[in-house]
Amino acid sequence: MPASPIRKLVPFAEAAKKKGTKVYHLNIGQPDIETPPAIIDAVKHADIRVLEYSHSAGNESYRRKLVQYYKKVGIDVTYDQIMITTGGSEAILFGFFTCLNPGDEVIVPEPFYANYNGFACAAGVTVKPITSTIETGFALPPIEEFEKVITAKTKAIIICSPNNPTGYLYSKEEMYKLKDICLKHNLYLFSDEAYREFCYDGEYVSAMHIEGMEEHVVLMDTISKRYSACGARIGALVTKNKAVYDAAMKFAQARLSPPGLAQIMGEAAIDLPDSYFEAPKAEYLSRRNLLVKRLNAMHGVICPNPGGAFYAIAKLPIDDSDRFCQWLLESFSHQGETIMLAPATGFYGTPGLGKQEVRLAYVLNTAALDRAMNCLEEALKIYPGRIEN
Amino acid sequence: MPASPIRKLVPFAEAAKKKGTKVYHLNIGQPDIETPPAIIDAVKHADIRVLEYSHSAGNESYRRKLVQYYKKVGIDVTYDQIMITTGGSEAILFGFFTCLNPGDEVIVPEPFYANYNGFACAAGVTVKPITSTIETGFALPPIEEFEKVITAKTKAIIICSPNNPTGYLYSKEEMYKLKDICLKHNLYLFSDEAYREFCYDGEYVSAMHIEGMEEHVVLMDTISKRYSACGARIGALVTKNKAVYDAAMKFAQARLSPPGLAQIMGEAAIDLPDSYFEAPKAEYLSRRNLLVKRLNAMHGVICPNPGGAFYAIAKLPIDDSDRFCQWLLESFSHQGETIMLAPATGFYGTPGLGKQEVRLAYVLNTAALDRAMNCLEEALKIYPGRIEN
Repeated sequence: MPASPIRKLVPFAEAAKKKGTKVYHLNIGQPDIETPPAIIDAVKHADIRVLEYSHSAGNESYRRKLVQYYKKVGIDVTYDQIMITTGGSEAILFGFFTCLNPGDEVIVPEPFYANYNGFACAAGVTVKPITSTIETGFALPPIEEFEKVITAKTKAIIICSPNNPTGYLYSKEEMYKLKDICLKHNLYLFSDEAYREFCYDGEYVSAMHIEGMEEHVVLMDTISKRYSACGARIGALVTKNKAVYDAAMKFAQARLSPPGLAQIMGEAAIDLPDSYFEAPKAEYLSRRNLLVKRLNAMHGVICPNPGGAFYAIAKLPIDDSDRFCQWLLESFSHQGETIMLAPATGFYGTPGLGKQEVRLAYVLNTAALDRAMNCLEEALKIYPGRIEN
Repeated sequence: MPASPIRKLVPFAEAAKKKGTKVYHLNIGQPDIETPPAIIDAVKHADIRVLEYSHSAGNESYRRKLVQYYKKVGIDVTYDQIMITTGGSEAILFGFFTCLNPGDEVIVPEPFYANYNGFACAAGVTVKPITSTIETGFALPPIEEFEKVITAKTKAIIICSPNNPTGYLYSKEEMYKLKDICLKHNLYLFSDEAYREFCYDGEYVSAMHIEGMEEHVVLMDTISKRYSACGARIGALVTKNKAVYDAAMKFAQARLSPPGLAQIMGEAAIDLPDSYFEAPKAEYLSRRNLLVKRLNAMHGVICPNPGGAFYAIAKLPIDDSDRFCQWLLESFSHQGETIMLAPATGFYGTPGLGKQEVRLAYVLNTAALDRAMNCLEEALKIYPGRIEN
């Protein structure tokens, strides 16, 4: 298992802070948006005598309320098609364990969420990347690229839309292309929709909106980003495929139950007004606009405009993104400040790709983001490994 | 993956309740003891603006406090040898993933905690049971039995002491026998010590008390039973083996962090007075004494006196424990009441064993337990599949 591209430079950031340098963290998708106080209050006001195991699929009351939530985003499911998991992470893990056997293969458009590697490793599964490129804004690779890597061992495709790490939002046409290939080759479609609420351009299309895919789609969801509640560790696996659900339940039963206190939070979140998302969405949008504008104004930098989530990948005029990101922390500061980025190499499965790319998570307010961009701009002027593309 | 022996009869229990029969649940280790209000209050009083991811190994403040807790139970570890997990379940899962490869084998004395099967299945590992018997009170099988099943693929032994499902408490001599065999064959010793606080006879010996085993022991722990907080989902993997710890950290990072709210509970629990355990321990002890006395007073029933935890396995004069447990729910009631038990067959890896045995969890107060024993006594008198041993 490779080290996390998001966390591997942490010791260098700690050393920079010890020297007195302020570090702007754009490396990790930990939002700074306030967790809605109402959902934390729900836990504070809960009357708990014994904090018991919940149902292995999560509290039935919560699952029944989630049906309403999904209905609002155009997903029609019943409570017994929803399984509450320990974060979206466990939903992904259960999907891998349930739908794939050791030695099987899963196709994923790269760059991709690096932790898929960890879950694949745990399940003994091989990740087969197909490359999406910054030139296309990280659009879905052509179907022929999928066809090239499909073998008898291929059992699933995993996508994330809006995407982490690219911010790309798959179009309806792209989702239907995925449908065609999944039906043709009888593949599962794992759809990681953690960032559903944050779409800025274009229409959000869930894998569960696609008719005729009922037996193929396994939706992996989480409240982490939706309500800025990453530490709660509450997610969901949603599927209309009863055999998949029943098999996942065996893993769910082995680990007994998802976290009890945080399920109260998740359930309370369904009662937030529909207007709740307006403010965080507007905030992320203004950050995205600032970030993309600042990046593209830098000489030699290219950053496609991401349609959703709160990530962007930028191509920089540098020799090696791992070296550059480490140098930013070790050897650079501008007005006593520097910036921590995630080298994009860790988001690619194909060795050698992403060497000129970094991922930026716009999880800081616009003032901080602007200062962080000042750092990057100055850094690129003096970085010894600068190369003109 | 086999179905859970603890949960597979739930539909029959639900049907019995629908008919108006009161069901005493002795099938599941969900304690009825109150969760200490102080630890729930710690969450209620926490000041949380953004519920962020914690460190993947858990909050450092919590891990540092756990060092004090472990010191009190004679375990000398540093905070960076402790990893907070999502329940003891995840500690077991990480142990399997980290120390074993697909195809490897783990030896476990049977009857054993059935969920080990689930984690072994997830990790592609084979569980090799060696049989402990009710005649010896479920003592550790002779070392020769271990030697018989050890192969080149054997990588670990897993024990649980005090034991679930038998309540057996391994003696110092038995722990040293395990040391010898682990050192001789270079095996890991996975030590599940979820019930440490509840030892009634004899001395509690942790695998971490055994000198010379530092590189071999992986301790799997949980606050679930200790503080009657099963729904919190907070456990710990503890090891002095740095390579194991570092490898487990990769899995921990892939799932980002353990539950945030419940870590506050766990940390607050360290501040409970040492006297906290006196009341629940005394309560469990009086229940055990009642249960064992009532069981052994029934004609044809044998129940060894368990030294710890809150389980007992009893041998009954019946043909088939699965049939009997289902019959109790489907076809029997005494004064409008019946009893739900876990057939012991599901706790054995060897097919055919445990057919006359049931596991009883004494998680009800003595008055309820007494009435439950009345039900069992009457049931055994009229059960059509009764056989005299």
